[in-house]
Amino acid sequence: MDQHPAILFANDAFYQAFNDRDAEAMAAMWAGSVPVACMHPGWEPLSGHDRVMASWKRIFSAGQSPTVQCRDAAVSQKGDMAFVTCYEEIAGNYLAATNIFVREDGCWRIAHHQAGPTAGRPQSPIAAQGAVN
Amino acid sequence: MDQHPAILFANDAFYQAFNDRDAEAMAAMWAGSVPVACMHPGWEPLSGHDRVMASWKRIFSAGQSPTVQCRDAAVSQKGDMAFVTCYEEIAGNYLAATNIFVREDGCWRIAHHQAGPTAGRPQSPIAAQGAVN
Repeated sequence: MDQHPAILFANDAFYQAFNDRDAEAMAAMWAGSVPVACMHPGWEPLSGHDRVMASWKRIFSAGQSPTVQCRDAAVSQKGDMAFVTCYEEIAGNYLAATNIFVREDGCWRIAHHQAGPTAGRPQSPIAAQGAVN
Repeated sequence: MDQHPAILFANDAFYQAFNDRDAEAMAAMWAGSVPVACMHPGWEPLSGHDRVMASWKRIFSAGQSPTVQCRDAAVSQKGDMAFVTCYEEIAGNYLAATNIFVREDGCWRIAHHQAGPTAGRPQSPIAAQGAVN
């Protein structure tokens, strides 16, 4: 079965949890079978479930986390691990992002996220591909 | 067999090819079984073998590509795909990097690279872990 739709769904769910500022949903979608990490733009790299989740709670509780629109999402998969590259559009600004997923009990969960500045701009129109529904 | 040493070796080889400005070695170590991508710091995201290799040739031919020291490399693996998080130290400046590898015919090849600005600093001394030999 082609897993790309399921991986893109997990990628969308990640951004949905971000936009909803839903710490519980965010915690539930991170992998448990491999070491996880997160590189928020400009932050110190974070490793381990506890530190990564603490960062999301901090972001959500700040009350000013902007809405993120994912665009130009593209999948590469090898067995039970996959990565998605995409743009994050935030109030007219753009970041390039890498999201890595692992399959656990049939469910794709995120294992790593990195986002950083980019000179590029997405090619696809909003909501055409990999966008938050 | 524990694959982490082999994955860290591939990660080291990637930085060695960078430091050697060796376009041929760099081309040989990129994966052929999955779509590849590369996000140089601040650049437009690049996808596909041809565009990624053209970017390395451009960097190497510029004649001013700095030496990169990889530090604090850490591996997460699931089957035939793995990712390494690390710092890149470049002339006293630091980037946070994600390198994704896939196993092809028993050999770990790089499938994606992203590096971007970070407020963090490595914990390990130079050459203690994941460093270029």
